[in-house]
Amino acid sequence: MSTHVFFAEMLGTFVLLLMGGGVCANVALKGTLGSAAGWLSISFGWGFAVYCGVWVAGISGAHLNPAVTLGLMVNSDVTEYAPGVAITLATTLLYFLAQFIGAFLGAVGVWLAYKKHLDDPQNAGNQLGVFATGPAIRSYGWNVVTEIFGTFILVFVIAGLGKTPHQLGPLAVALLVVAIGLSLGGATGYAINPFRDLAPRLAHQLLPIKGKGGSDWAYSWVPLAGPAIGGILGGALAAAMF
Amino acid sequence: MSTHVFFAEMLGTFVLLLMGGGVCANVALKGTLGSAAGWLSISFGWGFAVYCGVWVAGISGAHLNPAVTLGLMVNSDVTEYAPGVAITLATTLLYFLAQFIGAFLGAVGVWLAYKKHLDDPQNAGNQLGVFATGPAIRSYGWNVVTEIFGTFILVFVIAGLGKTPHQLGPLAVALLVVAIGLSLGGATGYAINPFRDLAPRLAHQLLPIKGKGGSDWAYSWVPLAGPAIGGILGGALAAAMF
Amino acid sequence: MSTHVFFAEMLGTFVLLLMGGGVCANVALKGTLGSAAGWLSISFGWGFAVYCGVWVAGISGAHLNPAVTLGLMVNSDVTEYAPGVAITLATTLLYFLAQFIGAFLGAVGVWLAYKKHLDDPQNAGNQLGVFATGPAIRSYGWNVVTEIFGTFILVFVIAGLGKTPHQLGPLAVALLVVAIGLSLGGATGYAINPFRDLAPRLAHQLLPIKGKGGSDWAYSWVPLAGPAIGGILGGALAAAMF
Amino acid sequence: MSTHVFFAEMLGTFVLLLMGGGVCANVALKGTLGSAAGWLSISFGWGFAVYCGVWVAGISGAHLNPAVTLGLMVNSDVTEYAPGVAITLATTLLYFLAQFIGAFLGAVGVWLAYKKHLDDPQNAGNQLGVFATGPAIRSYGWNVVTEIFGTFILVFVIAGLGKTPHQLGPLAVALLVVAIGLSLGGATGYAINPFRDLAPRLAHQLLPIKGKGGSDWAYSWVPLAGPAIGGILGGALAAAMF
Repeated sequence: MSTHVFFAEMLGTFVLLLMGGGVCANVALKGTLGSAAGWLSISFGWGFAVYCGVWVAGISGAHLNPAVTLGLMVNSDVTEYAPGVAITLATTLLYFLAQFIGAFLGAVGVWLAYKKHLDDPQNAGNQLGVFATGPAIRSYGWNVVTEIFGTFILVFVIAGLGKTPHQLGPLAVALLVVAIGLSLGGATGYAINPFRDLAPRLAHQLLPIKGKGGSDWAYSWVPLAGPAIGGILGGALAAAMF
Repeated sequence: MSTHVFFAEMLGTFVLLLMGGGVCANVALKGTLGSAAGWLSISFGWGFAVYCGVWVAGISGAHLNPAVTLGLMVNSDVTEYAPGVAITLATTLLYFLAQFIGAFLGAVGVWLAYKKHLDDPQNAGNQLGVFATGPAIRSYGWNVVTEIFGTFILVFVIAGLGKTPHQLGPLAVALLVVAIGLSLGGATGYAINPFRDLAPRLAHQLLPIKGKGGSDWAYSWVPLAGPAIGGILGGALAAAMF
Repeated sequence: MSTHVFFAEMLGTFVLLLMGGGVCANVALKGTLGSAAGWLSISFGWGFAVYCGVWVAGISGAHLNPAVTLGLMVNSDVTEYAPGVAITLATTLLYFLAQFIGAFLGAVGVWLAYKKHLDDPQNAGNQLGVFATGPAIRSYGWNVVTEIFGTFILVFVIAGLGKTPHQLGPLAVALLVVAIGLSLGGATGYAINPFRDLAPRLAHQLLPIKGKGGSDWAYSWVPLAGPAIGGILGGALAAAMF
Repeated sequence: MSTHVFFAEMLGTFVLLLMGGGVCANVALKGTLGSAAGWLSISFGWGFAVYCGVWVAGISGAHLNPAVTLGLMVNSDVTEYAPGVAITLATTLLYFLAQFIGAFLGAVGVWLAYKKHLDDPQNAGNQLGVFATGPAIRSYGWNVVTEIFGTFILVFVIAGLGKTPHQLGPLAVALLVVAIGLSLGGATGYAINPFRDLAPRLAHQLLPIKGKGGSDWAYSWVPLAGPAIGGILGGALAAAMF
């Protein structure tokens, strides 16, 4: 696997988190121009963040998400992660590494772009919400179930995209992500991507944000487990179905 | 008709109802992250739910809706339900069966994904609104008229889609559904699909939802009759026009 | 010019006004499900109403708007209204006739689809707003200026659409209309189409709507004159530019 | 470089600013139909304003933005500004001139289209907001950082667009701009285009707007410097990456 593929996957995930986290900052924080712009803004914002990341990461297949990588791995129809990139343990780990680094750097970018607002007096929960997901009603088991549904749809429908001719480019998957946010995102904030939650949560822990509270590590396993399970289920059903 | 076609139609309708019902749950229930996100979220959410369902059900032609199946049946320009699937009484009934099962399972999925919110103290009308449609002003005759208009547009314009070259894939029909929701959905909640209403209403009746009220079976014939009539009119006019 | 072309143009304009007027009814009237959904819903709603109308009226070139017909007429690059339809006085008048009838019938459809809400106690201004446009600040001269700008952009950019290869189909013009609504629609309600205003205004005058007020004929020349001028300017500049 | 290319770039930037500024007027001013329509309307509005401008300026490559021109200049993969237009100091300055004139005229158009609302008693800050950007929290250094991030993403992802096959036409870049507004626009109002801010700010200074306040020239260097730096960084990284 070439360095080029690694950097593409890393930069794509950087763009995803910079823009996705930026939407959360813009909508969740007090005093921004998009403050309280609502859930439709969150949903379109994350969908179009995916859109931008995918344009950047074309040569790596733009997984941008370890749950997608897992889904492709278990999908017996899929023979490569990207043109010329075999599915091996080594390439899988390299994808994970690129995704994690990119996601972490994206979160750092959000911190820089919204530095003055993050340091302004804010609700600590909203500050954390810029970085990590959290459930509307805390119930680890059911929160995992919700994340499984969202990620299952993501990976299963992505497999469907490849089977129908279209010329939507990255818009195809972007609208899928908008759809998931609107429909299945309202209970847990739809991580549907293990590192979309873990890497920014770590950034929240490490960065010097004025007045920040805890990083809620107790919840952090939910957006790892749910998306991992959902991605594997989605990839497996796609192999059986399409 | 192959089992594959049956399962595609079933899974597509499952995705449609899981995501469409999910949007209703997210927007209508108290305490979700998208609570009170408004009608534009509902309209985009259902449109993009169709979008996702269509990607999944490519090989069955993605009717996902018995009104569409009826519209195709009466449209003399249409010779097959999908490539290799003849229009017969048997295939029609199999499409209906697949759609009903898929819609029912989708509603069960919504229940699981929003379990904690549905069981939280909620307005019983909003709980029902997650599953079934209801009119803003109850007036069975006029409610049927409204559903006829919405479904007529759906089926008539879908026939138009096939006559103009484009590369929008499932986005073409998705935006049509967004358009119908915004324009013709405000009086009855636009079932425009008999089983989108009937199957989840049955799920509401059967599932153990805390504090739920009645399933309003008195209204249930409206979203059956209106869409059936509208679909047939749309298919018939399309045959005459295009 | 074949009857088929006439009916396509008529039905396309019917769909445009049924859905566009439907959006106004849904958002402007009290008690609908989309009541007070806001300007973004209005803008997307009208844009996607155009989208639906264009799918239907492919064989007539989907003008759906006499200002577009005028713009094509004065655009010396354009040699036909649609494949096989010459630009003559007779075809122009037939397009106008088809558009007017379609727009009127669409307004009647809105009345039927929202019958119970229109007859419910409503603000008379909102009732009229379902059918006709009106200025936020009444000032005939400046209102004409605003309508000229909006229609100029419509006709000028449509000419640009034909010069760049794309596969968006009717989505291309739909998004243009969304853009005009968001940007140039806020002062006059953007008729940008003489018959989009005149025909439904006449319907408002004629239909038995409970508690309705006057049809504001004093303003009715503004959405005729502004769009006519804007369309001619747009077509003329397009001929010079593209 | 032909006069045609110059006028295309000028007219495209005119359309961009007429419509983008129009969105600001519609949303920011009191008494318009879209008053207080919110950040999602601003984001879609500016994105679709770009969309319209790009349709118009096809033959000039539709930079519409000196930061894009700079990004192309430093991107060693790019050999022409548009088909047949070499990258020289002269053509660069002509692009800048066309963009500045177009942006200024667009702002004048906004003034005409919203004349009565701009002259109505308004908050002077909102009047200025129709023309120029301003930060939510004034902090010149951090405001520059935010503008660098937004413009970097713009120019970097645009370079990515050219590397992936698609048929979205101008919609591709439009959605990128929507994405940037939602995600990275909330701290400074995302000029991400030096002349989008400078030319309308000059118009605000020169035009006779009733009750207007100062044009805040103290801030005006931020949306020049940030986008210039961000565009150069984006173009340089694109050359290294793609």
